[in-house]
Amino acid sequence: MGKMGSEMLIYVLLLMAGVLASGQSSQVKIWPMPASVSYGHTHLYLTNDFGFSSNYGSEILKDAFDRMLALIKLDHVIDANFSAFNSSSLLQGLHIVISSPNGQLQYGVDESYKLIVPSPEKPAYAHLEAKTVYGALQGLQTFSQLCYFSVTSRVLQIDMSPWTIFDQPRFSYRGLLIDTSRHYLPVPVIKKVIDSMSYAKLNVMHWHIVDTQSFPLEIPSYPKLWDGAYSPSERYTVADAADIVSYARKRGINVLAEIDVPGHALSWGTGYPSLWPSKDCQQPLDVSNEFTFKVIDGILSDFSKIFNFKFVHLGGDEVNTSCWTTTPRIRNWEETFNDFGNKLSRKTVVHNWLGGGVAQRVVASGLRCIVSNQDKWYLDHLDTPWQEFYANEPLTNITNLKQQKLVIGGEVCMWGETVDGSDIEQTIWPRAAAAAERLWTPFDKLAKNPRDVTGRLAHFRCLLNQRGVAAAPVAGLGRAAPEGPGSCYRQ
Amino acid sequence: MGKMGSEMLIYVLLLMAGVLASGQSSQVKIWPMPASVSYGHTHLYLTNDFGFSSNYGSEILKDAFDRMLALIKLDHVIDANFSAFNSSSLLQGLHIVISSPNGQLQYGVDESYKLIVPSPEKPAYAHLEAKTVYGALQGLQTFSQLCYFSVTSRVLQIDMSPWTIFDQPRFSYRGLLIDTSRHYLPVPVIKKVIDSMSYAKLNVMHWHIVDTQSFPLEIPSYPKLWDGAYSPSERYTVADAADIVSYARKRGINVLAEIDVPGHALSWGTGYPSLWPSKDCQQPLDVSNEFTFKVIDGILSDFSKIFNFKFVHLGGDEVNTSCWTTTPRIRNWEETFNDFGNKLSRKTVVHNWLGGGVAQRVVASGLRCIVSNQDKWYLDHLDTPWQEFYANEPLTNITNLKQQKLVIGGEVCMWGETVDGSDIEQTIWPRAAAAAERLWTPFDKLAKNPRDVTGRLAHFRCLLNQRGVAAAPVAGLGRAAPEGPGSCYRQ
Repeated sequence: MGKMGSEMLIYVLLLMAGVLASGQSSQVKIWPMPASVSYGHTHLYLTNDFGFSSNYGSEILKDAFDRMLALIKLDHVIDANFSAFNSSSLLQGLHIVISSPNGQLQYGVDESYKLIVPSPEKPAYAHLEAKTVYGALQGLQTFSQLCYFSVTSRVLQIDMSPWTIFDQPRFSYRGLLIDTSRHYLPVPVIKKVIDSMSYAKLNVMHWHIVDTQSFPLEIPSYPKLWDGAYSPSERYTVADAADIVSYARKRGINVLAEIDVPGHALSWGTGYPSLWPSKDCQQPLDVSNEFTFKVIDGILSDFSKIFNFKFVHLGGDEVNTSCWTTTPRIRNWEETFNDFGNKLSRKTVVHNWLGGGVAQRVVASGLRCIVSNQDKWYLDHLDTPWQEFYANEPLTNITNLKQQKLVIGGEVCMWGETVDGSDIEQTIWPRAAAAAERLWTPFDKLAKNPRDVTGRLAHFRCLLNQRGVAAAPVAGLGRAAPEGPGSCYRQ
Repeated sequence: MGKMGSEMLIYVLLLMAGVLASGQSSQVKIWPMPASVSYGHTHLYLTNDFGFSSNYGSEILKDAFDRMLALIKLDHVIDANFSAFNSSSLLQGLHIVISSPNGQLQYGVDESYKLIVPSPEKPAYAHLEAKTVYGALQGLQTFSQLCYFSVTSRVLQIDMSPWTIFDQPRFSYRGLLIDTSRHYLPVPVIKKVIDSMSYAKLNVMHWHIVDTQSFPLEIPSYPKLWDGAYSPSERYTVADAADIVSYARKRGINVLAEIDVPGHALSWGTGYPSLWPSKDCQQPLDVSNEFTFKVIDGILSDFSKIFNFKFVHLGGDEVNTSCWTTTPRIRNWEETFNDFGNKLSRKTVVHNWLGGGVAQRVVASGLRCIVSNQDKWYLDHLDTPWQEFYANEPLTNITNLKQQKLVIGGEVCMWGETVDGSDIEQTIWPRAAAAAERLWTPFDKLAKNPRDVTGRLAHFRCLLNQRGVAAAPVAGLGRAAPEGPGSCYRQ
């Protein structure tokens, strides 16, 4: 009877596995959706010593593979008896071929990849091809989403094999802004955000380091600047910042460092009061004072030693000029653009956060643009549901092909007024993932109605939870708690 | 000028370090507060190869030391030039002496320890003494809270040396309940909860595995029981459960497994409908049916193979007897006690959750009691602030010494109706830490007014954030977001 019980159990589970465990196997559950996917109906099982081989001898690739393997093994103990499996259904490893030896991560690096499971030549292996190691990293992320622990087989399983996936991003800039001035974010918290970004194929962490409230970063040229930190322990040393950049680079993510001038600079004057127009008038920076520009030069020169991304963000938003007696001689950004856009250098990239058709005007004037209109892509707007993040199209009303190319991507913004180490993950996720698909997936493969991808997004959200990322339920608004008991896949 | 600047910086930081980085050095910042603490005013610096030696060759101790070291190194890059330090201020390692060879973790295990930094005999070492390895683990937690990364010295630093700490818990049972029936909690989420429990010296994870809503655990004797899981991927295999028990044991934490009978058993009938009184009447269990008891026996027998803690929790709460035509013949707990307490076996431990003087009556009748009155120690009651968790005294109105000894401890309860992998950490912390000090620290060392420990609790909360635990601000109610910008130590 017990025996019959277990046979029946396996039967029941096989049925249910098709429905849920494999992620509703009648549909592809990969997030973000790749450019091109074909699949079959065969089950494959990863052996316990599943490994990788490659023509490319780089630490980055080996570390990324080891991380991927640890991640898919994370949430269950694998205790199967492999002798019970048909050897033709066992997958022994992943072979990775990379054509370009260049390991530099820079803006616009080729992120395309091809993933074939199993390899037609070597059916016991999966096959991943990419031009660059960073394309291979994206392929590893996709591969990790094909694998899951099955309570039936008791091993890591891949359903719907054979898989053939061709993939590449729609936009080369897919960003997330974090803000370490309103609240200090401990380095381990930032690293966990970087990990989760890589799961959603975001590739730029825009680090809004400094603002009115605090100046947490060490600037060797002007060492009293971080006297403006909240406390001695709420600071990043140069070594910490370099560690964050290197950690991100190993995950295919660039760090865009922002030093917001001239508006939000109250915290600068704690160490150097002469940066303030006066004691009663402490921002914006006193741009009539040569010392102000020496400090900015010092910061940018120190930045160049830590941050190797091609862009540096100069903020420039919300400048209250009432304190000024002179005209600013430093370039700033969007609001400036509204005033004298055409005077900006052609090298300028305008980060559009006001929305309201600014992007159109920016590209019409021949400048490049990064879209993160606050009405749709501000994660601190808790009442903006994931559906609006998903539906926010960067090329809205931009029909001219040349102008479309000037939109290099977009960015969701996690401003830190009410976000710290206690709630940043569930405020970012899953809504940032909705924007990530908008920025990665070809336009014609995006859902016209976000409702159509709810189940797949819920699946990705549950995957984030399984990986220890505190992604909130898809049913709620920003960082909403689950409303009541239920399956993760239904909340 | 730049040079003068840095000298001034160091001066400023030394001043501020006394105030904040070391955790307001005019007070001890350890949480929970040890039984006895004395300290001085000297700074010590941990060398890069800080290691440990011991008379006790156990994997548990080595793993715990390595974890502790990784934890204190987690949040900053250590890049100091040690030759610049006065060698007499360098701490090269920790020597650990354990007197009992017994490595068994069981209820009531001796958790006392003595920590001396530096050792009077070997001033380059710290000295930790304990009767058992589990006492040493508690000592390592305390040691980890003496260390912090200083932006002045650029290394791990200990202030207020020399330290002499004698410590032991007030209560032997210091629990946290988690609920995997209302929402499935992925294994990595449970492991992270276990890690954070160890930081606060909690030592029992009460695992409320099954309830009305879902049956996530594999029971080999009755393999269709977990057909009552939310989905095939929201399940724990026997190997997963054993892995959790072993993970907890290595951190000095027992797992108390609960199988809640007979009330909340709707989910049992998905696989075995005959456990229901009838199709329309699906709980409580049909206790007039012998099969019900065979299944319970099967579950308890399977439990005994996974869970080695001396107690098993039988739930027994909220029994709606309207479905019953017969009298229950299985023992249940508190509500039953209210009816026929004196009929309960002397071996029974009553888990008091109703509150309202039940504990008094339980111990007056000679039974042991675990306190977790819902008006004070239910973490799902979001409107209960940490101050009430702190002030909840288990021995209230129990003056008789013999009866006081029958109160073996207490437990905070994280019921899962609105808690899953996205919000469990900030709903548990920092409020559970307030109860943890109530259960660990001698009564006469507890603050009469919780206000007096706010700064130290905020410090512990910030430490949890630095360790990647999403503890909420102390200023708010359960899992409240920070209200606005500010230092972690002030929120």
